[in-house]
Amino acid sequence: MKEVRILEIKQSVFADNDRQAELLRQELKKKKLCLLNLMSSPGSGKTTTLMRTIEALKDTYRIGVMEADIDSDVDARTISESGARVIQLHTGGMCHLDAEMTRQGLEGLDPAELDLVILENVGNLVCPAEFDTGAVKNAMILSVPEGHDKPLKYPLMFSVCDVVLVNKIDVLPYFDFDLEKCREYVHRRNPQARVIPVCAKTGEGIQEWTDWLSEQVRDWNGL
Amino acid sequence: MKEVRILEIKQSVFADNDRQAELLRQELKKKKLCLLNLMSSPGSGKTTTLMRTIEALKDTYRIGVMEADIDSDVDARTISESGARVIQLHTGGMCHLDAEMTRQGLEGLDPAELDLVILENVGNLVCPAEFDTGAVKNAMILSVPEGHDKPLKYPLMFSVCDVVLVNKIDVLPYFDFDLEKCREYVHRRNPQARVIPVCAKTGEGIQEWTDWLSEQVRDWNGL
Repeated sequence: MKEVRILEIKQSVFADNDRQAELLRQELKKKKLCLLNLMSSPGSGKTTTLMRTIEALKDTYRIGVMEADIDSDVDARTISESGARVIQLHTGGMCHLDAEMTRQGLEGLDPAELDLVILENVGNLVCPAEFDTGAVKNAMILSVPEGHDKPLKYPLMFSVCDVVLVNKIDVLPYFDFDLEKCREYVHRRNPQARVIPVCAKTGEGIQEWTDWLSEQVRDWNGL
Repeated sequence: MKEVRILEIKQSVFADNDRQAELLRQELKKKKLCLLNLMSSPGSGKTTTLMRTIEALKDTYRIGVMEADIDSDVDARTISESGARVIQLHTGGMCHLDAEMTRQGLEGLDPAELDLVILENVGNLVCPAEFDTGAVKNAMILSVPEGHDKPLKYPLMFSVCDVVLVNKIDVLPYFDFDLEKCREYVHRRNPQARVIPVCAKTGEGIQEWTDWLSEQVRDWNGL
């Protein structure tokens, strides 16, 4: 695997994160750069989904990835094989990224020549939902083994997401996961959220997801 | 399902959590009450494991459960069916419990007649690891679908745990999960940690776990 750049990000000095996030989004708009914030629990399949996403869109858009992790660069090294530009962000124990930390990451990635940057946020259903990163869209992955009741237990995460990918649908026969109940619970938190069942491992459902994402990039970047 | 008591816990006023945790442990020692802090990702099977644990130990020890959740009382209602005394703690958006919050929960549970209290911490591999709850022992559940690389990515969680339950081993054939690598990665973080493969759904491996837990209760309570 390739060596990847590791950036130790610093604690933010800004008290008003919402304002910083709004400023970052305005800059992204000017730069015609779409930023997606991808969140989930640990082990739900963020990295595999990202690999599929890059594979599907790399001939259409110039893609960059920011991998946020407490420690390690396991995921960034995997992603570096995909052809996307990648940077590893070490949060130094912090459980989320805010807008200023995201800005540090973007600067480290040098996104002038990119159309789409995907931030793989820290694996956590609680804290990342509380901080606007400045992203244009929020996506989250809920994997089948986690159970369909998660929207009831982590309400904020589901209410801030534009799209929920229900991943690992290949193992549906082995788990008590009710896809219709999952949709119902997601929509109870967020009636506008798009729910897309996928299997990142086999590629099932990935096209619906990348079509959606592609539409967001075209809309935001004015392509 | 039974109605359960819900306690809205308040933000702690103590700056020195380590000191508060030590004080709580000293009180528990005097009261001959063993407190286990159970942590994991969302959806790893904490509640099912708890149900099995209570089933195995309820004739030996008087057991209480504190269910910490951002919102909802889904798990507490399930646990209330087990015969254990249960209280739901609402953290009001907070992503972890510290010692003072744990103390509030214990007071709400009224543990004078109990031998063992299990705290089901917020589903999160990051923040709960950073705060000593005052518990006598820490346990965590890593489920097979999450992947064997988690000790590399969430180092602090694995280094603070006395025991790691590897849950959902019934689905090992459907996932790329290497149990030996998992043990190796856990021990890299924490050479003393006990690793116990279990399936809370079928009961496989649960006896090794409840034997271990029973030994901790006997040791701590001087039984």
